[in-house]
Amino acid sequence: MKAQHQCGRQTWKFLHDIRIQGSAVAVGPLEGEGPLAAEFDHIHPDMYAGQASWEKAERYMMYQAVQTAIKKSNLLESEIDIVLAGDLLNQTISSNFTASQLNIPLIGMFGACSTSMETLSVGAALIDAGYASYIIATCSSHNCTAEKQFRYPTEYGGQKPEYAQWTVTGAGAAVVGRGGAGPRITHATIGKVVDMGIKDPFDMGSAMAPAAVDTLSTHFRDTDRMPSDYDLIVTGDLGKVGYAILKDEMKDLAFEMTPVYNDCGLMIYSPDQQVFSGGSGCASSAVVTYSYIMNRLREGSIKRALVCATGALFSPVSYQQGESIPCIAHAVALEAVEEV
Amino acid sequence: MKAQHQCGRQTWKFLHDIRIQGSAVAVGPLEGEGPLAAEFDHIHPDMYAGQASWEKAERYMMYQAVQTAIKKSNLLESEIDIVLAGDLLNQTISSNFTASQLNIPLIGMFGACSTSMETLSVGAALIDAGYASYIIATCSSHNCTAEKQFRYPTEYGGQKPEYAQWTVTGAGAAVVGRGGAGPRITHATIGKVVDMGIKDPFDMGSAMAPAAVDTLSTHFRDTDRMPSDYDLIVTGDLGKVGYAILKDEMKDLAFEMTPVYNDCGLMIYSPDQQVFSGGSGCASSAVVTYSYIMNRLREGSIKRALVCATGALFSPVSYQQGESIPCIAHAVALEAVEEV
Repeated sequence: MKAQHQCGRQTWKFLHDIRIQGSAVAVGPLEGEGPLAAEFDHIHPDMYAGQASWEKAERYMMYQAVQTAIKKSNLLESEIDIVLAGDLLNQTISSNFTASQLNIPLIGMFGACSTSMETLSVGAALIDAGYASYIIATCSSHNCTAEKQFRYPTEYGGQKPEYAQWTVTGAGAAVVGRGGAGPRITHATIGKVVDMGIKDPFDMGSAMAPAAVDTLSTHFRDTDRMPSDYDLIVTGDLGKVGYAILKDEMKDLAFEMTPVYNDCGLMIYSPDQQVFSGGSGCASSAVVTYSYIMNRLREGSIKRALVCATGALFSPVSYQQGESIPCIAHAVALEAVEEV
Repeated sequence: MKAQHQCGRQTWKFLHDIRIQGSAVAVGPLEGEGPLAAEFDHIHPDMYAGQASWEKAERYMMYQAVQTAIKKSNLLESEIDIVLAGDLLNQTISSNFTASQLNIPLIGMFGACSTSMETLSVGAALIDAGYASYIIATCSSHNCTAEKQFRYPTEYGGQKPEYAQWTVTGAGAAVVGRGGAGPRITHATIGKVVDMGIKDPFDMGSAMAPAAVDTLSTHFRDTDRMPSDYDLIVTGDLGKVGYAILKDEMKDLAFEMTPVYNDCGLMIYSPDQQVFSGGSGCASSAVVTYSYIMNRLREGSIKRALVCATGALFSPVSYQQGESIPCIAHAVALEAVEEV
């Protein structure tokens, strides 16, 4: 039996006029040299962002993104009822310490790099159902905090294979509420954990692609839509390797993605930047969605977008104990204010 | 402006008949020797629970709790639309690997030891608003996985101060849906992060008590209730130290807690068990709530209970870098089926 908001078991349809009131991003130096630089609210020229440690730099970027998103929404911090936040660090300390600087109740989430759309999905659901008047969804990642935690000490300079990815340094935040003039959130598809047995923590694109395939194909079936119903479909951080796998696997399921498909991890850097297979991390999808995609929806050059954020749900303990990498993807459908 | 479900900014009032359909817990040996042993569904005689590692033992207990809760609800796994799960391990691997064994979409959450009521609150909200027909809320902790991750290698046998706590080994799960015969979920209060500057990772009771005071006092003001409106109010894992602080601080705010107040970390062990100041961990509140408290509500000997799960949102990196311990608490109000 379907509940009121369900179209299919995994997809929520929002019944009210749920909109992004404002969004903002803060990024590090490499992202600031990339092709989307003009879209970003805050670009830091070094990895410390004026803070005493990389961890403090990461949370400072989250704090900046949150404050700027609230400001761009013409709201006060006191008007935001809940912050939904997550990040990659152990015990999500970036989110916790950011929330301790805000006088807003916290719902902490963990979905690895899928956290951007996980927080936005649940936040939109809470707004649609009337649990809050305004929420803010936010997440962050930082190349140096992630590298030292997940792989090797950053100073060690370990070599990486070509199929490895580069954790994006940055944070994104979006304020959601009813009505207003921003892009509309129409659907969210909550992903299942998919584990194809891949055990190489550098090969996240191969590990995550099947989870994105599962969520995207479910989204299309649940909503009775096709890829061509969207002007842009992005995955969060599959990189070159996962991008190719996803297109092939979706085609096998009779979903032709090529004309509208891109990956945030490929969009955020230019081909001549040394980022191996492309960007990864919570900030990959958050930064691209909450700047470039929101800006295109606001100006109407994109009418309908689908953001499928992908997450690799492993830890150093789990892969060092020889376990595979379970993955997940959550997708959110966005629409321009005015259908032309 | 209040949204439909808000009574006060932080408290949700559920409008439909939202009930616990069934709940279950699995625990380790020490918990199985405690005063609540007769209430537990699964008691494991050793810390490995028949698995190859402590990490696998933890997630196996979560899996057991989930499966038994579904069975006790007379439902099939395929009827559960979403699992909301969290734990203490880096990147919440217990939840991720458990969800990879379930064919159910996952919303991963992190609230440290407040995760029990965080997952139940959001899960109940999703049911009340019609985003799912049935959800399952679950969380876990394991003494040995937590000890080695947060403090010292377990084999090292580091000494602890008297005010330290003992991480509970176990997992709890609850299925939530509309109607039926189980205890009703009437309200949830979402906590703010409170940081009083405490930096000692052994002294979690002192760190967390102010967050519980903030959430409980907010709950009473938002709902226009007093402690005496409840037959039982529990905090999740304040232990002896935090228990005393909470009572004092609540009294200063004119809320007399003494006649109805207890702490799950004190209830789960007997005074002659060597657990320092009492139990802690996600499983402390989950195990006590999803066994003892649910059983009393089902039989009607408790008519109304308030569970305030408390979480210390730190990581080894944050405290080793000299930072304080931000804390949070989320509270859920439960009612017996029949008001007599």
